Amino acid sequence: MPRVSTDRLAARRQEILDGARRCFARYGYEGATVRRLEEVTGLSRGAIFHHYRDKDALFLALAEQDAARMAEVVADQGLVQVMRDLVADPNSEELSWLGTRLEVSRRLRTDPEFRELWRDHSAALARATRERLERQAKAGLLRDDVPVSVLAQYLELVLEGLVAHLAMGLPADELTAVLDLVEAGVRARR
Amino acid sequence: MPRVSTDRLAARRQEILDGARRCFARYGYEGATVRRLEEVTGLSRGAIFHHYRDKDALFLALAEQDAARMAEVVADQGLVQVMRDLVADPNSEELSWLGTRLEVSRRLRTDPEFRELWRDHSAALARATRERLERQAKAGLLRDDVPVSVLAQYLELVLEGLVAHLAMGLPADELTAVLDLVEAGVRARR
Repeated sequence: MPRVSTDRLAARRQEILDGARRCFARYGYEGATVRRLEEVTGLSRGAIFHHYRDKDALFLALAEQDAARMAEVVADQGLVQVMRDLVADPNSEELSWLGTRLEVSRRLRTDPEFRELWRDHSAALARATRERLERQAKAGLLRDDVPVSVLAQYLELVLEGLVAHLAMGLPADELTAVLDLVEAGVRARR
Repeated sequence: MPRVSTDRLAARRQEILDGARRCFARYGYEGATVRRLEEVTGLSRGAIFHHYRDKDALFLALAEQDAARMAEVVADQGLVQVMRDLVADPNSEELSWLGTRLEVSRRLRTDPEFRELWRDHSAALARATRERLERQAKAGLLRDDVPVSVLAQYLELVLEGLVAHLAMGLPADELTAVLDLVEAGVRARR
């Protein structure tokens, strides 16, 4: 039996994730059946579920990749920039995927185990947001009449609203002005 | 054949809506099958669909009732108060229903006809929000460096975020402080 290199394993896993993301985006969570996951990845169910235990595991791995990607932008440029990027480039597949994330909202509320896993997989983004805000507060860039934890929760709430808004295909024409307002609202007044 | 009074018709329709709301809240949009709608309302499918054409029509009628109810509070006390009420009284059935609303996000994005109907059925809330903000702006209560339309869109975005946040069962401990921040952010500075 040939040894498979770590690189090839990682590439295969990424291939599966990319296909699964397209599949979830197109058919939604419920509609992304095992048969459709096979079609879109070009792999057998045996091959797919060798790498990811089940559909939930695939879905959570995608949420984790999102969080990690956003966390990089947050660390560098802040959460408002993540939102500006979403508004500036409403890539249709990305929005479909965000819509699919919303579909599991009821399950997040009613299935504590799934919610714990989701939180673990999204933790990178929350951590990056808080760390950046704390750095900015130390540098005197943030308003100091509101705790950093409240500012972080505020920005996260706006992000959740923006994701819901865009995922529902609602108009985006004034969102840049709204984000200017949000950004000014957390900054120190000059 | 006995004549049915308008009052009795209205009561029957409300009975169906109340049952349907519980059914959507418990089973989600996909899971609210015709059989379950029959069980929860205690009515036959014939009786239910005599009043509402199909499941979509039921769902949209519920969305319209939400929007009308929220619009009353908005006209009187503002959109931030609607949000404070949601945070103060996280009624579990209400949150489940809000979660169900999120489940249709993908459909709102991909089904233009459904989106148009949804918008029509939610219009009362958007109108009430804009009207109240315009009254407040005239009275000099709002900041005047940002157009009212941007303030309205901002508050709606925060509401969408709050609904998503609560519907996903995420922690609500600092949300009151966040709403204070939001409210102060649209007011005229004194």
